[in-house]
Amino acid sequence: MLIAKVIGTVVATRKNSNLIGSKFMIVEPVPVMNGGAERLVAVDQAGAGIDDLVLVALGSAARMQTGCQDASIDAAIVGIVANPEEIFVKE
Amino acid sequence: MLIAKVIGTVVATRKNSNLIGSKFMIVEPVPVMNGGAERLVAVDQAGAGIDDLVLVALGSAARMQTGCQDASIDAAIVGIVANPEEIFVKE
Amino acid sequence: MLIAKVIGTVVATRKNSNLIGSKFMIVEPVPVMNGGAERLVAVDQAGAGIDDLVLVALGSAARMQTGCQDASIDAAIVGIVANPEEIFVKE
Amino acid sequence: MLIAKVIGTVVATRKNSNLIGSKFMIVEPVPVMNGGAERLVAVDQAGAGIDDLVLVALGSAARMQTGCQDASIDAAIVGIVANPEEIFVKE
Amino acid sequence: MLIAKVIGTVVATRKNSNLIGSKFMIVEPVPVMNGGAERLVAVDQAGAGIDDLVLVALGSAARMQTGCQDASIDAAIVGIVANPEEIFVKE
Repeated sequence: MLIAKVIGTVVATRKNSNLIGSKFMIVEPVPVMNGGAERLVAVDQAGAGIDDLVLVALGSAARMQTGCQDASIDAAIVGIVANPEEIFVKE
Repeated sequence: MLIAKVIGTVVATRKNSNLIGSKFMIVEPVPVMNGGAERLVAVDQAGAGIDDLVLVALGSAARMQTGCQDASIDAAIVGIVANPEEIFVKE
Repeated sequence: MLIAKVIGTVVATRKNSNLIGSKFMIVEPVPVMNGGAERLVAVDQAGAGIDDLVLVALGSAARMQTGCQDASIDAAIVGIVANPEEIFVKE
Repeated sequence: MLIAKVIGTVVATRKNSNLIGSKFMIVEPVPVMNGGAERLVAVDQAGAGIDDLVLVALGSAARMQTGCQDASIDAAIVGIVANPEEIFVKE
Repeated sequence: MLIAKVIGTVVATRKNSNLIGSKFMIVEPVPVMNGGAERLVAVDQAGAGIDDLVLVALGSAARMQTGCQDASIDAAIVGIVANPEEIFVKE
C-alpha cells in the first residue's frame, strides 16, 4: 500500500455498470514514500475527503471490500490516517 | 485507475479468439496524473472515441465487465469523463 | 496491452512442466508507446515471428488463452498487427 | 519479492473491516536490490520490528497467508532475514 | 518474463509457513533486457544455481507450479537458459 494525500476528484457520468455509485478520488503519494508524485485515481472505500491522508491499495487488493469484488477497480482508499503523527519513520 | 486521453487506435486482424470484437484504443495519461506520457493499448468498454478523456483500469480490473472475464485484456476504458471540468484538483 | 516488435527468441530446455511447448519471444515496445525500450519475454499465442508487430498482454491476462490457464506465464503475444498502417495515432 | 528494511509504521484508525488487526509497516528496499529507495506500506505477517531486514511479497502474493485471503492487502512482510550475512551476493 | 542471472541467495529463517522449503535466489535482469539492473528475490522452481541464466515469472504467474499455488510468492525462476547462445536477438 501507499500513503497518499487526497488532492482531487473526478466524475465519469458514463461508466461500467459495476462502477455506479463509486466515488473516484485523485491521490498523490506523500513525500515520505520516496517515490515521486505520480498520481492515481482510487475508489473511496473509507469515507475520505480532500486533503485527507489515506492508505491506498493497488491491484486486486482494491476489490476485497464487500460490494466491490466485481467492480473494475485497480486502486482503492482502504484506510484514513487521522493525522500526520500516526506516520512514524525512523530516519 | 488513470485519467487518460484517447489518442489513437490499433487493429489486430489475427488475435486470440477471446479478443474478437474488442476495440483497441491507444491512450495517454493526462498531465494532471504527473506520471509522464507512456501510452497503453486499452480495450474500450465504455463507448469511447478519439480525443475523449477516459478512466483506464489496469490489470485484472480490466476483466470485470460482463463478457470480458475470460479475455486477454490487461487494460480497459471503464468510464468517460465528459468534460475537463469534471476533473478537480486542489493545487 | 502494449504494441511491441518481436526482436528475438529464447530457449529454456529445463523449465516448469506447465511451460513445455511454449515458444518464448523477446519483444520490445515500439516508439509510439512513448515508454522506452525495456524488453520482455512473452509467450507466443498468435503465431508471431521475428520482426512482427504484436499486441502483448501482461500479468494474469497472459493466461486467459485456452491451454494456458495454469502456465507460469506473465506476458503473452495475443495479436498480430499486420502492418504499421493499422496503428493510428492522432498527433 | 524484495529485501527491505523496516523503517517505520503507520496507523489507520478508520479502515476497511478486513484490515482490522493488521500491523502496517513502512519498508524500504535495501541497496543490494539496486532499485532505489521507494518505500511501501506492508502488512506484517512475520512478527517484524523496526530495523529488521525482511522479505516483502507484492500483489496477490500478499494475501496467501491464512487469515489474509480477503484483506485489502497488496504488500506483506512474509519473512525475516535474521542478519545481513544471510544475504549472499556474488559481485 | 525476464531473462536474468542468478547472482545470490537469501535465507529467511522465520517466514510464512507456506514458504517453508522454498529456496530464495537473488536475480538480476541481463543487459539484453534493456531495463536496468534492479534485482529481485525469486523462488527457485527449476533447480537453478549461482551464475545460471534463468527465466523469471512475475506476479501470480509465480504460483502456477504444483505445490506453490498457496505460497506467498510473487517471483519465480521457471526455466533455465542452458547457455547464452540460446538467447537470440536480431539487432
